[in-house]
Amino acid sequence: MFPGPLGVSLSGDALARGAWSLEARHIRDHGLGRHRAVDDTPAGGGPGMVLRCDVLAAAIDAAAPPGDPRPRLLMSPRGRPLTQALVRELAAGPGAVVVCGRFEGVDERLIEGRGLQEVSIGDYVLSGGEIAAMVLLDACVRLLPGVMGHDASGTEESFEGGLLEYPHYTRPRLWEDRSIPDVLLGGNHAAIARWRRAEAERLTRERRPDLLGEGGKG
Amino acid sequence: MFPGPLGVSLSGDALARGAWSLEARHIRDHGLGRHRAVDDTPAGGGPGMVLRCDVLAAAIDAAAPPGDPRPRLLMSPRGRPLTQALVRELAAGPGAVVVCGRFEGVDERLIEGRGLQEVSIGDYVLSGGEIAAMVLLDACVRLLPGVMGHDASGTEESFEGGLLEYPHYTRPRLWEDRSIPDVLLGGNHAAIARWRRAEAERLTRERRPDLLGEGGKG
Repeated sequence: MFPGPLGVSLSGDALARGAWSLEARHIRDHGLGRHRAVDDTPAGGGPGMVLRCDVLAAAIDAAAPPGDPRPRLLMSPRGRPLTQALVRELAAGPGAVVVCGRFEGVDERLIEGRGLQEVSIGDYVLSGGEIAAMVLLDACVRLLPGVMGHDASGTEESFEGGLLEYPHYTRPRLWEDRSIPDVLLGGNHAAIARWRRAEAERLTRERRPDLLGEGGKG
Repeated sequence: MFPGPLGVSLSGDALARGAWSLEARHIRDHGLGRHRAVDDTPAGGGPGMVLRCDVLAAAIDAAAPPGDPRPRLLMSPRGRPLTQALVRELAAGPGAVVVCGRFEGVDERLIEGRGLQEVSIGDYVLSGGEIAAMVLLDACVRLLPGVMGHDASGTEESFEGGLLEYPHYTRPRLWEDRSIPDVLLGGNHAAIARWRRAEAERLTRERRPDLLGEGGKG
């Protein structure tokens, strides 16, 4: 599963260059008994299986012994919503230990006992935490020095300003009777900047009024 | 890149069984000239490159000719936020054509001209739309008949009720001086249901008050 999509394109090139690294660990290596069991039925009944705290703790302790400065994250729809501000904070830090559960759940005592910070990539349910971890890693990796160059900063700042991106256009000038707005072809840079700002504000107002006011969600 | 993580575990088993299918297409197959160019510099200046509308339209038209009933989605941080309600709607539909851009952008005329619906998995910036598409696909695939059985319905309904999941526990009963709450071990099913409901409400109030009121975000 890992590095999976993180092993190609931008993040993959950066991985190959050593700009970042990834160590995937199997929880099952710490499973119990001949079948290496990692989960059991929920206390109190109910559907699904719950990942055992003792097994997960052994896996975490093997990857990050006490004193490891990296934050320990658990991808979970109950978690703190991932925002670009949190991405930036993680990208500037010493790395992270990311626990990927299967969605039926993780024993709550593990979360408390190992100080896991729950992080959610959005209000929907996935079959497991792995793809959510890939989202988090991709968002962080592209902010690392040298991974994207100045391309990253432009768009990111625009988003972090709490506004959605303005519309983009490129050649051809005319396509299926649709033309590039005149202002973008006129060469008046102040007018172009004003138009883009106004479009970003219009789109944000129309689509995501929740991002306006209080300086946005980031 | 595809099926990548979707080719293993639950979604991978379902893919192998034919419970769903995936056809990945390279935009570059429709690129222009000897170098198969797919992008060009932004009209009006600025950093990054913009994906050309003519190239993307050719790629979309080859994958989904006029009359194809599937919705055409563009993974984009400007889009409608993905929620479990939208996941359910897509999973119940005829499939989807998902356009994955690189984040510097897609010519706006393509979005209008091909009726793309922009969908965002969250308020953060990724290096491209591919991992976002994997999130969307994984969320949909696990709702398809027979993929997860009754395991899916329990947790999902809990989330769709607009509340975060209650805490889970399993064996061992005592771990590092932490025990499973007594109520879960007592066998009183009504008391267990009350406790779980109260915990779900407490967690939602503490962590995501935005989900309360108006029936939640879903």
